[in-house]
Amino acid sequence: METKTSKIGFSIKEFYNFSLIEFVIKGGIIDPSDLKNVELPPVPYNKGAAISGRGPVWLYANLAHLLHPARWVGTYEPRMNSIIVVASHVNHPQPGDVIPLE
Amino acid sequence: METKTSKIGFSIKEFYNFSLIEFVIKGGIIDPSDLKNVELPPVPYNKGAAISGRGPVWLYANLAHLLHPARWVGTYEPRMNSIIVVASHVNHPQPGDVIPLE
Repeated sequence: METKTSKIGFSIKEFYNFSLIEFVIKGGIIDPSDLKNVELPPVPYNKGAAISGRGPVWLYANLAHLLHPARWVGTYEPRMNSIIVVASHVNHPQPGDVIPLE
Repeated sequence: METKTSKIGFSIKEFYNFSLIEFVIKGGIIDPSDLKNVELPPVPYNKGAAISGRGPVWLYANLAHLLHPARWVGTYEPRMNSIIVVASHVNHPQPGDVIPLE
């Protein structure tokens, strides 16, 4: 019997105008086929969604796609301790905007 | 007078079922605000769109968002010399599928 178990764990921290979604790759190693079993936890779509974690660009691009229904999508940039907005359905913020984490 | 010039150059290589869009960051340095001036060249949307280049995850996530109208979106993974599918509007391919470059 094959059981599908996600190799990617998530934790969510709520901020006033966005959710910070941090992923952890269990065992530290991920294969592209693991994208088939991503189980994103419920994320509020009435604010932004920011992605954080150590992982390949294709995981980031996949998660950004899955979070598309959020008001906007961003990625956490550790070197700036900030969220970089990469997609938006609203006037503010827009792609390229930088939201410092406090 | 401020002139907006994109710091990101693109070249496109057409394959049978996808376009490979390679970006080059002029001068090698990019700032989040440069996302405001991304000028993606015309890309056919009747096949997949794959992103390639050396750049931060937020650039990849932004380009994946801009290429959303394509049939599917992928990123080039140099270590596998393959495209990793990250988003799809069609039955084949699906996220997690790996398309080797020949």
